[in-house]
Amino acid sequence: MGYIDLGSQEIWAQYRSEFPVTDNLVYLNHAAVAPLARRASDAMKWLADDGMNFGSLHYDKWLASYDGLRAVTAKLINADPAEIAIVKNTSEGIATVALGLDWKPGDKIVAFQEEFPANLYIWKKLEQWRGVTVQWLSYLDPLDKIEAAARGAKLLATSFVQYLSGYRADLEAIGQICRRHGVFFFVDAIQGLGAFPLDVRKMNIQALAADGHKWLLGPEGNGVLYVQQDWQDRIEPVEFGWTTVAGFADYSSRDMTVRKDAGRYECGTLNTVGCFGLWKSTELVLEVGVNRIAPHVQSLGDQLAEGARRKGYEVLGERTPATGAGIVSIRKSGVDARTTHAHLKANGVITAPRQGWVRMSPHFYISPADIDRVLETLPG
Amino acid sequence: MGYIDLGSQEIWAQYRSEFPVTDNLVYLNHAAVAPLARRASDAMKWLADDGMNFGSLHYDKWLASYDGLRAVTAKLINADPAEIAIVKNTSEGIATVALGLDWKPGDKIVAFQEEFPANLYIWKKLEQWRGVTVQWLSYLDPLDKIEAAARGAKLLATSFVQYLSGYRADLEAIGQICRRHGVFFFVDAIQGLGAFPLDVRKMNIQALAADGHKWLLGPEGNGVLYVQQDWQDRIEPVEFGWTTVAGFADYSSRDMTVRKDAGRYECGTLNTVGCFGLWKSTELVLEVGVNRIAPHVQSLGDQLAEGARRKGYEVLGERTPATGAGIVSIRKSGVDARTTHAHLKANGVITAPRQGWVRMSPHFYISPADIDRVLETLPG
Repeated sequence: MGYIDLGSQEIWAQYRSEFPVTDNLVYLNHAAVAPLARRASDAMKWLADDGMNFGSLHYDKWLASYDGLRAVTAKLINADPAEIAIVKNTSEGIATVALGLDWKPGDKIVAFQEEFPANLYIWKKLEQWRGVTVQWLSYLDPLDKIEAAARGAKLLATSFVQYLSGYRADLEAIGQICRRHGVFFFVDAIQGLGAFPLDVRKMNIQALAADGHKWLLGPEGNGVLYVQQDWQDRIEPVEFGWTTVAGFADYSSRDMTVRKDAGRYECGTLNTVGCFGLWKSTELVLEVGVNRIAPHVQSLGDQLAEGARRKGYEVLGERTPATGAGIVSIRKSGVDARTTHAHLKANGVITAPRQGWVRMSPHFYISPADIDRVLETLPG
Repeated sequence: MGYIDLGSQEIWAQYRSEFPVTDNLVYLNHAAVAPLARRASDAMKWLADDGMNFGSLHYDKWLASYDGLRAVTAKLINADPAEIAIVKNTSEGIATVALGLDWKPGDKIVAFQEEFPANLYIWKKLEQWRGVTVQWLSYLDPLDKIEAAARGAKLLATSFVQYLSGYRADLEAIGQICRRHGVFFFVDAIQGLGAFPLDVRKMNIQALAADGHKWLLGPEGNGVLYVQQDWQDRIEPVEFGWTTVAGFADYSSRDMTVRKDAGRYECGTLNTVGCFGLWKSTELVLEVGVNRIAPHVQSLGDQLAEGARRKGYEVLGERTPATGAGIVSIRKSGVDARTTHAHLKANGVITAPRQGWVRMSPHFYISPADIDRVLETLPG
């Protein structure tokens, strides 16, 4: 295992021990469900023991996980912790924004037709519920077409990275378009956050949601929602629960003034074990550094795409330094993707069959040698 | 410790080893956050390890926790698994019903003014959002007053057990009132479910929500929502996410037909570790039997109330066999509840200071001898 050289700058070698999954599998399925980072798993197990042995005796430590998660998330996306709400998943985060904005009939939304359903259905429902109109673009449309659509729109919603093709949107350019036309810019960041740099200020993003169980290496059922401070008073908390209000510690109070920060979008008791996991895994991502993770993940994706092409596979979409990410989907004429997936799995390589494609999604602790092994295993 | 007699019928003795917290504390705070049952904690730790070592390789087992949780919950309340949705907390469950019903301006809601805010704020917000009117009663109002209010109402919302006084509502009688007047009956069951029998058919309940981290002995951040089958098509899923639809496994589908069961109220990825915990802890509750748990918890509450009175404390409310539950709140003139709470805590007895009262809430694995010890520790 010559690539394990702790003195080198190779991040996969430095952090390999954080990922026991590497002892068992070549795990190329971060776009579905990531393996838990060791420190995330350890923190969750600590809480499961603490709750069993002491109930909520150490509740102060539990609460620290909420603040901790908000702080590391804010740091990751260049926001303020007061702009971060803890949500159960991306869908809830998107719905919070979609349902909380003050829509008028005729308002226009710009969205993308190839999106994962989480970032599609709720916008369609707003047509029925609020009389808005959604203009559907393709994520491959050029920026001038996006700009033409954005004129007069109230909101534009896009994914950071497309779930199937792995196309990474130019959030900075789209954010500039939104700024020029006064459009609210919403980003579903689930397939990129943790692997590629995202700066809500630089990219002029007003709201963003992401789950923790993909590129952030945390558990399922816990995600984050960013809402720019200026917009919080214009996005009403719809799931109006007991922790929505500023004085939520006083259960006898009937003062419904909402919290001053994005905590207003948290309606009740949080998933504490999930917060522990995601807090610690996000801390790891920050420690490694997204600026170091991104080029490595990009390079692993390129290696997979090139190797698969050499073996006669078609690669979905075009990978460029500006638009590539951690997802590579391949297929071969006449071969069922599920067969390829099963063959790889039987050889310890985990991918996902998706709509006729074999989707592969490596994270930063995977080595080029792992990818070589995958490519050797891939049926010719 | 003479009360540990595994051959006896005393349930606290039979299941004591399921609660390692008993080695450390006399835990009388189930109305806030319960200690995890050992099997819940073990299941959560198994998942934290499985996810770390294998990613989602064993996803079939993970999915089984969702079905398992729906099944045990249905059994507990005499519902069908197709009537159970997994939610993040009670507040979300209540909001799902409140936001999803088809309100007309002028519709009337009957609710209770002393409720925990989770079962209060959202109904108040409906006045602002949908033009409905809420008539506020006291939970101590007699049934004929409740019946008078229910006439012409669209919905009545009550807690099973009041969070501070521990008053247990007569759900069967209120359910009959609701049936007579065609009123939708909603129950916030968080402070009773797992300790006292609840039968949604017998009690004519149309929807119910509860968290798992109190009397169900599971973790925070995972709860259950029951919606009667007949009503599911009349309560629209508002957080409309990718798992709301029947064909959610096909990400390229754009068919937004909702799921045939209460799963339609689950908008996206679930809190799998939480589901494992709550599934296993609810299984334990079923195994012990609520019909055995209830009289014991009732008796522990009575023992606490009588003992505290003997020491000169005032007990909030009147405990009767019909209205008592697992919550007993006490106070003494001139003594700050926080001081009493701190004194008990320093002696290994965990209670909660709440609005000037010391709230005590024992569950079934607590023994009468434990309560004797608490009463001895209670300042005279």
